[in-house]
Amino acid sequence: MAYLGVIAACLTTISFLPQAIQVIRTKDTTSISFMMYLMFTTGVFFWAVYGIWLRDVSIAGANVITFVFASVILFYKYREVRGKSK
Amino acid sequence: MAYLGVIAACLTTISFLPQAIQVIRTKDTTSISFMMYLMFTTGVFFWAVYGIWLRDVSIAGANVITFVFASVILFYKYREVRGKSK
Repeated sequence: MAYLGVIAACLTTISFLPQAIQVIRTKDTTSISFMMYLMFTTGVFFWAVYGIWLRDVSIAGANVITFVFASVILFYKYREVRGKSK
Repeated sequence: MAYLGVIAACLTTISFLPQAIQVIRTKDTTSISFMMYLMFTTGVFFWAVYGIWLRDVSIAGANVITFVFASVILFYKYREVRGKSK
């Protein structure tokens, strides 16, 4: 059953890659929630710090990867939001 | 430092609520990746089962909540994708 945690971690980590690719390709983030990615990116950053503090490679590693993908999405969403406020 | 894990868990769990609300309000999921939510929802489902198996209330609880929010988003995205294929 322990493998279930590994599969779950891989799925939830890699799942942000298709969204990051779609956002980079289309530059469209209209239906994406800025608040979600602000909270989520901050959350996975804290998870990564927590994992490093625990010296737990899987918690730290998975969340560093997710942090990279989520930051890309947050960046494009921030650009859209800022573009509208000009 | 242990509180960092709790804050991280709360942020990553609750972060899907604003996205679910936005999708319900606007019915717009165009820039949301279907593949992301298919993988992510499956992943958090496995996390919830894994947490129940471990009898770990925080892993199970956080992921059941995230599963509910992510499923709402996935449902609306599926409806949009299916609507286009008709």
